[in-house]
Amino acid sequence: MTSAQQPPVSLEDIKAARLRLQGVIRPTPTEASPTLSALSGVPVHLKLEHHQISGSFKFRGASNAVAQLTQAEREAGVVGVSTGNHGRGLARACANAGVRCVVVMSDLVPANKVAAIQREGATVHIRGKSQDDADRAARALVAEGLTLIPPFDDRAIIAGQGTLGLEMIDAVPDLHTVLVQLSGGGLASGIAAALKAHNPAIKVIGISMERGAAMHESLRNGQPVEVTELPTLADSLGGGIGLDNQLTFGMVQSLVDDVILLDEAEIAEGVRHCYWHEGQIVEGAGAVGVAALLARKVSPAGPTLALLTGANIDMDLHHRIVAGETPELLHTDAPCP
Amino acid sequence: MTSAQQPPVSLEDIKAARLRLQGVIRPTPTEASPTLSALSGVPVHLKLEHHQISGSFKFRGASNAVAQLTQAEREAGVVGVSTGNHGRGLARACANAGVRCVVVMSDLVPANKVAAIQREGATVHIRGKSQDDADRAARALVAEGLTLIPPFDDRAIIAGQGTLGLEMIDAVPDLHTVLVQLSGGGLASGIAAALKAHNPAIKVIGISMERGAAMHESLRNGQPVEVTELPTLADSLGGGIGLDNQLTFGMVQSLVDDVILLDEAEIAEGVRHCYWHEGQIVEGAGAVGVAALLARKVSPAGPTLALLTGANIDMDLHHRIVAGETPELLHTDAPCP
Repeated sequence: MTSAQQPPVSLEDIKAARLRLQGVIRPTPTEASPTLSALSGVPVHLKLEHHQISGSFKFRGASNAVAQLTQAEREAGVVGVSTGNHGRGLARACANAGVRCVVVMSDLVPANKVAAIQREGATVHIRGKSQDDADRAARALVAEGLTLIPPFDDRAIIAGQGTLGLEMIDAVPDLHTVLVQLSGGGLASGIAAALKAHNPAIKVIGISMERGAAMHESLRNGQPVEVTELPTLADSLGGGIGLDNQLTFGMVQSLVDDVILLDEAEIAEGVRHCYWHEGQIVEGAGAVGVAALLARKVSPAGPTLALLTGANIDMDLHHRIVAGETPELLHTDAPCP
Repeated sequence: MTSAQQPPVSLEDIKAARLRLQGVIRPTPTEASPTLSALSGVPVHLKLEHHQISGSFKFRGASNAVAQLTQAEREAGVVGVSTGNHGRGLARACANAGVRCVVVMSDLVPANKVAAIQREGATVHIRGKSQDDADRAARALVAEGLTLIPPFDDRAIIAGQGTLGLEMIDAVPDLHTVLVQLSGGGLASGIAAALKAHNPAIKVIGISMERGAAMHESLRNGQPVEVTELPTLADSLGGGIGLDNQLTFGMVQSLVDDVILLDEAEIAEGVRHCYWHEGQIVEGAGAVGVAALLARKVSPAGPTLALLTGANIDMDLHHRIVAGETPELLHTDAPCP
C-alpha cells in the first residue's frame, strides 16, 4: 500500500465510531508530565487510557464491533479468544450492550485471569491444553452461530481504537509525535489513520518489546511472520499478527513512522516512573511510551503524547517492580506468561 | 436549623453549578468494587474523584467560585490560603479561567508543596512563620482588591462540591449510603444537600480521623470549637472549621446522618486496600470511606458508594504504607505535617 492510497479504515469510519461510542466509552483525560517534559525538552503529555472502562483501550474497539452487530447476531452472541485485555474489554462491552459473550481459553490460563473475565460478565469456556485448542473451540462456536470478534485485524476494532487519535488532537492541537503501543497493530493503525488524516506531519512511533515483537519482525521481512513468544513484562504486547493478516500489517507499514524496541529493564523503568513520578499504576505494556522517552530511544522535536494503557497488572508484580527489583529477578518467579 | 428548613445551598444552586462546570471539570467514573462488595454484603461502588483535575474534588468548588467572579474581580485576581488540595484546585481553576491567583503560605511549608502549587499556575507568596501570618498576609491582599476564595465555608464552594452528589445519583440510582470525607464540611454539605433533595432516605456518613476531628468535636459541643492539630495520614482532613462558621457547621448538623472516626492504622489499611485490591493510588484522606468499610465501622444496608479523593500523596510515604509499615513507624520520619 502506498501512502497515496486511502487506508482501509478511513477518518470517516473513525468519526462514525466516535459518535457510536458516545456515552459508551470514557473519553480519557490527558495530563502534562512536568518530569518527562523537563527530561525531553519538549512538552510531554500522558493520555490516561488505563482509566478506560475495563482498564485498557480494548473496550473501545470491542464496543464499536458489538454496536454494529445485527439483531440476529446480538441474539446469538459473540465469542472471543483472549485471556488478556481484549477478553476483558470484549466481555465488558457485551455486558454493557446486553449481548451474550463467550471467551474461550485453554486450561493453561491461571484462575485469576479466568475470574477477572467472568467478573466482566462473560461465560468462560476452558477448552484443551493450548491456544490452538482454544482457537478450534472458538471456531466450533462460530459454526454454531456465534460471531467471532477478533482482537485487532478487523475494521470495526481498528476504527474503535482510532477514536483515541481524535481525542489526542482535541487534547493537544499542536501534536508533533505520538508514542503508541505496537502489538497486533489495531491500536497503532487506528490512531495513525486518525492522526495522519488530520495532519500527515504528525509522527506516529510504535513501541514493542524486544522479546517477541511480531509486527517489527514482519515489517523487516516485508510480510507477516511468526515469532517465538518469550516472557516479558509487556505481556499484553505478545502474540502474533496472523500469517493471513488482512489490514493491520499494511496499515502499520504505510502509516507508522518508526518502531522502537525496548528491553525488559527499560520497560520496568517505565512502570517505575509512572508510579513514582506520575502517580499512575500501569502494566508493562502500558508504560512503553514513557519507557522509550526515559531510555532516550526517541527524541521528539515537538509536543509529544505517550499513551498509557492498560492497568491490568498483578499488583504483587507491580509492587516488586516499583520497589526496584530487576527484570532477571522478576522473571524468575513472577507471574509472567 | 431544622430539617424542614431549606439548606442555605439548594439543589437548584447545585444544578446551576453543574451546568456552569460542564466542560470545565471532569465528571469522574464510578466503579464497582468486587472485594468490598463481598466484604460488606451489599454492592459497593467507588467514585474515582482522585482522577479529577488537580487530583481532588477541590477543583469543582474552586472552579464554581471563579466562574462567578465579576469582570472587575477577575481582573484583580484571587487569593487563597492553603498548602494542600484547595490551593492546588484553586490554582488550576484560575489557570483554566485566565485569572491571576496568589496562594499565601508560611515559610514552614516544604518546598515540594510550594512547587506543586506553582506548577498549577499560581503565584506563591511566602509570608511569615505561621498560618496566622499567612492569613494576615492574605487579608492584606484582599484590602488591595483581590478576592479571597475560602476553602469550604462559602456558597459557591459548597455548590461546586455538591455536583458530586448529582453524579453519584446518575451512577448509582438506587443509592442507599454514601461515605464521604468530613473536614471543614464543604464537601459533605454539598453532597448531602444534593442527595437529600433527591431522596431524603439516602444516608450520608461523614468520615474523619481521630487525631483532630474539628467538625466532630464541634457537633458534640453544639457549636464550632477549636481542636489541636496532630500529625495524621489523613492530613488533608486537618484544620479547623472556623469559630465564625456561617454555613457548613449548620448544614452538616442537619444533613449528615452520622460521623465515624478512624485511627491511623485503619486509615493506612484503606490506602493499602486501594492499591492492592482496587489498583488506585490515593492519599490517606482519600481512602477513609474504604477504610471505614474495612474496619467495619459502618454496616450499610444497601448499595453503598465510597468517595475516593485525593491523589496528592508523597509517593515515598505511599510506598511505605503499601509495603506494610505501621503508622507508628510512618509518623516517626514520614513527611506528615
